[in-house]
Amino acid sequence: MTQPETSALAHENLSADELLDAWNVLGPDERAEGFLSLARDEALDCFARLPARDQAELLLHLPLVERRLWLRQLEPDDAADVVQEAPEEARSRLLELLDEPTRREVTALLAYAEDDAGGLMSPRFARLRPEMTVDEAITYLRRQARERLETIYYLYVLDPEQRLLGVLSFRDLFAAPPDKTIEQIMSTHVVAVTEDMDQEEVSRLFHEHGHLAVPVLDAERRVKGIVTVDDVLDVVEEEATEDFHRIAATGVVPSLAAASLRTLYQKRVGWLLLLVFVNIFSGAGLAYFEDTIAAAVTLVFFLPLLIDSAGNAGSQSATLMVRALATGDVQVGEWVRLLGRELTVALALGATMAAAVALLGLYRGGPPIALVVATTMALVVLVGSVIGMLFPIALSYLDLDPATASTPLITSIADIAGVLIYFSLARWLLGL
Amino acid sequence: MTQPETSALAHENLSADELLDAWNVLGPDERAEGFLSLARDEALDCFARLPARDQAELLLHLPLVERRLWLRQLEPDDAADVVQEAPEEARSRLLELLDEPTRREVTALLAYAEDDAGGLMSPRFARLRPEMTVDEAITYLRRQARERLETIYYLYVLDPEQRLLGVLSFRDLFAAPPDKTIEQIMSTHVVAVTEDMDQEEVSRLFHEHGHLAVPVLDAERRVKGIVTVDDVLDVVEEEATEDFHRIAATGVVPSLAAASLRTLYQKRVGWLLLLVFVNIFSGAGLAYFEDTIAAAVTLVFFLPLLIDSAGNAGSQSATLMVRALATGDVQVGEWVRLLGRELTVALALGATMAAAVALLGLYRGGPPIALVVATTMALVVLVGSVIGMLFPIALSYLDLDPATASTPLITSIADIAGVLIYFSLARWLLGL
Repeated sequence: MTQPETSALAHENLSADELLDAWNVLGPDERAEGFLSLARDEALDCFARLPARDQAELLLHLPLVERRLWLRQLEPDDAADVVQEAPEEARSRLLELLDEPTRREVTALLAYAEDDAGGLMSPRFARLRPEMTVDEAITYLRRQARERLETIYYLYVLDPEQRLLGVLSFRDLFAAPPDKTIEQIMSTHVVAVTEDMDQEEVSRLFHEHGHLAVPVLDAERRVKGIVTVDDVLDVVEEEATEDFHRIAATGVVPSLAAASLRTLYQKRVGWLLLLVFVNIFSGAGLAYFEDTIAAAVTLVFFLPLLIDSAGNAGSQSATLMVRALATGDVQVGEWVRLLGRELTVALALGATMAAAVALLGLYRGGPPIALVVATTMALVVLVGSVIGMLFPIALSYLDLDPATASTPLITSIADIAGVLIYFSLARWLLGL
Repeated sequence: MTQPETSALAHENLSADELLDAWNVLGPDERAEGFLSLARDEALDCFARLPARDQAELLLHLPLVERRLWLRQLEPDDAADVVQEAPEEARSRLLELLDEPTRREVTALLAYAEDDAGGLMSPRFARLRPEMTVDEAITYLRRQARERLETIYYLYVLDPEQRLLGVLSFRDLFAAPPDKTIEQIMSTHVVAVTEDMDQEEVSRLFHEHGHLAVPVLDAERRVKGIVTVDDVLDVVEEEATEDFHRIAATGVVPSLAAASLRTLYQKRVGWLLLLVFVNIFSGAGLAYFEDTIAAAVTLVFFLPLLIDSAGNAGSQSATLMVRALATGDVQVGEWVRLLGRELTVALALGATMAAAVALLGLYRGGPPIALVVATTMALVVLVGSVIGMLFPIALSYLDLDPATASTPLITSIADIAGVLIYFSLARWLLGL
């Protein structure tokens, strides 16, 4: 399998695309070797496209001179991400390669939690004073455009204590009459975030307002930095991945390609064992009804069908709810209205499913069995759906992540309900 | 429930935040009424924050003068989205409200599939000629900045046939010596997309390159428009929602809050019925082993536990794979390597799970039952994991969405395998 990639790497004119395509099957040293063989502009392209985790690994496998060169290419917020992704013992070695002012900026950023607004922000934003004229501001920015600012497209107007007075886009500035002052054209209606705002909330704000950047303020309204939309794009993807993994009860795995086998085992085994524990209750339910089962073994035939349907209906409603809460499509406070809707839909689903299995019940067990199976189906679809809908909402109220209501957990809980409902009904209706 | 919101709406100084918080519980006429009572800047804020679907509904409930005013606020790509979200019969009425050139732009955009690059793009981008000087270009853009261009921050250099020659950021232009020509400072290394590129691929490109905009080219390299990063933010969220819903086998529901009960029923019932059909095979498996079950009813106790574990392991590996394929973390072509990794992890998981249930088996059924249960567990975790991993890859090879390998479907398939493995082993090892 690796033969063609290895020979591709031996090629004289390796491109960034070729190297990146082969990336996952290469070892760290081969990656570094391939990277060093790239032409200058291809190397720039390749480095920019690697995730921070891979940048960190690559840097640590490059010769010292190259390592310094590439680390210094990065904006402080990106450099902070790389340092964070490097193994603990290598971090100070990387920090030492930065020039003094950048090292100070990066160290300050490292103090923020990775998934807070502070952990996303860049300290290099464009500052204006309110009394500048439009012409002065343009001249000033023209000089700044050559410097390493994160963006010159959003401009922040600060007082001498670095407190935010207003904001304007470069485009507003550019289109304004040259002799107006910044104060006259700035907007004081500013969308801003606090340092400790969760990155999921930050991304929802971007989504709603469509801005390219927002300022990050401390408790005294001093601007600490800005978060730009390209960082938020990564956040949206990262948060969706986390929810995906949580809802399937796989522990969060940032990258399947990069995770060690040990990590994958550890992430998955905990949930699987916990679910076995939950499933013991279904087993206990079955044991409790052992006589009923022995008296009518045909009932077992319908068991997977009924308990899986309960679990499936529950997975559907849980997933709809978890995602709608995550995107802000619905609010936790609406739960009474949502429960009403869910009950209506689940009743209709249950009725349809009951009709479908009634036929099957008639065919395989006769009218009494059909009655038990159909009634059970209607009930378990209803119960499963309501559990699936309410569980994420309950977690939200407890300030836990709603996605922790994973579909395997919902399925296992619905199974217990299914076993109890099924055999209780059978015992009662069939007089077993 | 609606009482407090209704009185909030009666309030003199309603804010955009208050109206949007109450949005989901209001009827269309109440929404329009609330919107019309907002102060000018609050109304602007509110309208900008509504999704296209809600903008369309709101517009159709506003008086004609207001409807024209608000529709004309929109950029052509956003106006096209609104027209697309309006009911079929209302679309031409909305289009007629636009001025002639905008109507032509919007109509052209409507011809593109909604989830192609063409459906995302804006036709209003900044064009430069290669022979302009930096100073001329800045003067030209200063005039353009007042016009309704989507962005002036990325500039596209075109030949007289509108073919793309190069690109530069406004910032590069701004920092360049005034007498250089555009041709001298532009970059010819352009990341571009084609009109029919799928929006998921477009968003992956943004993610990788971190640009704020990319040009959309036709077959002759003519620039048809640009896609900007804020549109891509919506795409990333929308695509994640679709995958979430597919993987839980709930048909794709763009908005849980806005979906009618009928839609929710229709989206969910098809999958539930299909899964019942799949589950009949588990039932048939159980019927086939009826004698074995009757001879050792204790075996039924372990049934939910074993088949659920197979399904859970399968859901885990399917979810990891579906998400890793969607984000580009792994490629379909790597499947041999990934299968090797999955087998190793699944063996370790199976061994751990087997040890856990062996104890339970000993306690509830004695050594022979424990042997059957533990061996079954190791096998079903392995089989479930491999099915979960390979199924999405197989779908990818068939050009289907890997997320169609929904976890309920994987669970049902794993159930069938579980039933067959469990009772075959029991029959063989216990001599039943």
